[in-house]
Amino acid sequence: MRVLGVDPGLTRCGIGVVDGAPGKPLKMAGVGVVRTPADADIGPRLVLIEQGIEAWLDEYRPEAVAVERVFSQHNVRTVMGTAQASAVAMLCASRRGLPVHLHTPSEVKAAVTGSGRAEKTQVGAMVTRILRLDAPPKPADAADALALAICHIWRGTATNRLQQAIAANALHAQSRPRRGSA
Amino acid sequence: MRVLGVDPGLTRCGIGVVDGAPGKPLKMAGVGVVRTPADADIGPRLVLIEQGIEAWLDEYRPEAVAVERVFSQHNVRTVMGTAQASAVAMLCASRRGLPVHLHTPSEVKAAVTGSGRAEKTQVGAMVTRILRLDAPPKPADAADALALAICHIWRGTATNRLQQAIAANALHAQSRPRRGSA
Repeated sequence: MRVLGVDPGLTRCGIGVVDGAPGKPLKMAGVGVVRTPADADIGPRLVLIEQGIEAWLDEYRPEAVAVERVFSQHNVRTVMGTAQASAVAMLCASRRGLPVHLHTPSEVKAAVTGSGRAEKTQVGAMVTRILRLDAPPKPADAADALALAICHIWRGTATNRLQQAIAANALHAQSRPRRGSA
Repeated sequence: MRVLGVDPGLTRCGIGVVDGAPGKPLKMAGVGVVRTPADADIGPRLVLIEQGIEAWLDEYRPEAVAVERVFSQHNVRTVMGTAQASAVAMLCASRRGLPVHLHTPSEVKAAVTGSGRAEKTQVGAMVTRILRLDAPPKPADAADALALAICHIWRGTATNRLQQAIAANALHAQSRPRRGSA
């Protein structure tokens, strides 16, 4: 499956595309950043983000989009812009009928490093290792977008396996004789 | 000039359209609410808001869009949804090349009631009076959207007059003889 990860931001919106399947090595398909000028008005900046994300979706045709879940307890000045950029990313994906999944920063860190409180450099190092890249992708927003896509593939797989196990178990339970039916 | 005001929200997005010109009575052109189901995923909800706002822009063809400026010091749980809905409104307007203006809740209250700390009912009462309506528009989000449009027309007019005065003054200053040029 191909997942496009988005690390939302008004000035820099990180984009990372990862191909992966259960039990196989993950592969980076593309990575980059959608930028908008900090001195422009918010409306035109959102239009630029929409155009940028649309171009990535057109070129890479992902099956799912993973976006960082924004929390308002972070930096009050930047969180509104982050929420607005994430809205544009979710809108672009949903308009195409693509499933959108949100992952918190700590879920992403835990998925790629094993610790939900890992440093940014540790995330970059693990993304480099997992995708067998020559160097950590820069800027950090691009590396974070790849980490989101990796997190999504791995968590999605775990969820699928869990659902399969539950379904198998339910089937097994049904096939067992009920009390009092003998 | 025709202004479309948007009181952003994920569950209810208030829309109010007002026609007005300097020194003339304001007139309501339309009022309503774009709703999305609270139990739906965020992506499809943003798509519904986009479709709703597009329909309003298509039908009413405003010359400007006024959106409430969202602050993060409000309710932490709802503020992210408000920011995301406002992003969709700004995106729709800017994509059409329409100017987007943000006004804070206290600017809107001050414009229609004279006090930046007015109650919601007071805003509704003044919107009813200013637009000569039979009753306050409901829900409150719809009344707030009309208040935003009114605020925009009145503040825009004041800004225009100020700019004209500055321009006239600059012209006057240029036409005065300079010291030492005699």
